[in-house]
Amino acid sequence: MEQTDQHEDLRVTRTRACIEAAFLRLLRTHTFSKLTVQMIASEAMVNKGTFYHHYRDKFDLADQVKRRRLEDFHQLALSVFEQEDPGLRPLGDSIAPMVDAPESCLEDLATLRWVPSNDVDVFDEIRKIVLAQLTRYAERTGTPLPDIESEAWAAAYLALGFPEFRREGRAKTSIGDFAASVHRACGLFM
Amino acid sequence: MEQTDQHEDLRVTRTRACIEAAFLRLLRTHTFSKLTVQMIASEAMVNKGTFYHHYRDKFDLADQVKRRRLEDFHQLALSVFEQEDPGLRPLGDSIAPMVDAPESCLEDLATLRWVPSNDVDVFDEIRKIVLAQLTRYAERTGTPLPDIESEAWAAAYLALGFPEFRREGRAKTSIGDFAASVHRACGLFM
Repeated sequence: MEQTDQHEDLRVTRTRACIEAAFLRLLRTHTFSKLTVQMIASEAMVNKGTFYHHYRDKFDLADQVKRRRLEDFHQLALSVFEQEDPGLRPLGDSIAPMVDAPESCLEDLATLRWVPSNDVDVFDEIRKIVLAQLTRYAERTGTPLPDIESEAWAAAYLALGFPEFRREGRAKTSIGDFAASVHRACGLFM
Repeated sequence: MEQTDQHEDLRVTRTRACIEAAFLRLLRTHTFSKLTVQMIASEAMVNKGTFYHHYRDKFDLADQVKRRRLEDFHQLALSVFEQEDPGLRPLGDSIAPMVDAPESCLEDLATLRWVPSNDVDVFDEIRKIVLAQLTRYAERTGTPLPDIESEAWAAAYLALGFPEFRREGRAKTSIGDFAASVHRACGLFM
């Protein structure tokens, strides 16, 4: 009996993963307002009944995907900021590869940011995660961060800007190159 | 007869300015999808007939406002980058006050950026204006700009981010402070 339940659970997880991946694929070429449940179901190769078994509508799907990807981002942020010996390695060395990875949750989050939703503000959630981690990091290591609120906002803005920047035909740019360009552009305003 | 025409023209300009200002005010508290022509007409204190005399629908209004504000931005960019003696003054000294002004067209453009539209991509238009001006500036002054495309993208991203940053309860922040925060946040990724 228990084994059947586990089997059921796995199937549910797989079905949801298929639907969510199909949704994210469609968002690369369609705006959210143009997407229908039928299109998402077809792309995921499930029928509409299956879709409605898991989600109330496309807005519910969007909220659930946002929450899941934000949780991935939270875990990544924890793994970067809570290393045992933070002093040994500059923070940037750990953050850059994580953000650079093409399969990074940031790629999806940068897309999901523009999907309207009543419940989840992707940008603000990322800002809050970064702020919490930066605060703990600064306390633990004694790093002075004079305006941590602004810095968290700016870091979230940069992190979500990078996938957009890369999508504009700069596939080979690293987050380091991107940050360097922004760094220089800051000079125009300082 | 000519005087009547001038009078007519002035009235048309004034009516359009009223409707467009009302539209921008409403966008501060409502999403575009929730706005109706009736709401915009009421806010502008004109009747719906007058609205439809000037605009096909709210999408047409959005496109026209975008184009007008982009033209304002273009003129500002020209006035900053085409000063007679560009070498005497660092570029930042002229850009910062222009962008800082609360009545700056950037404030409106940062709002209009999220209004869906088939015709005008606000971000991309700003990027193109900055790119054209940076290119001319670099040529005229011999300033080396190794990756001018990336820098124009980053400058547009920063310029449109600043009004959003200020809206989050940081009304007294200057573009210089904002750029300094982003500048420090870049360090996380470099």
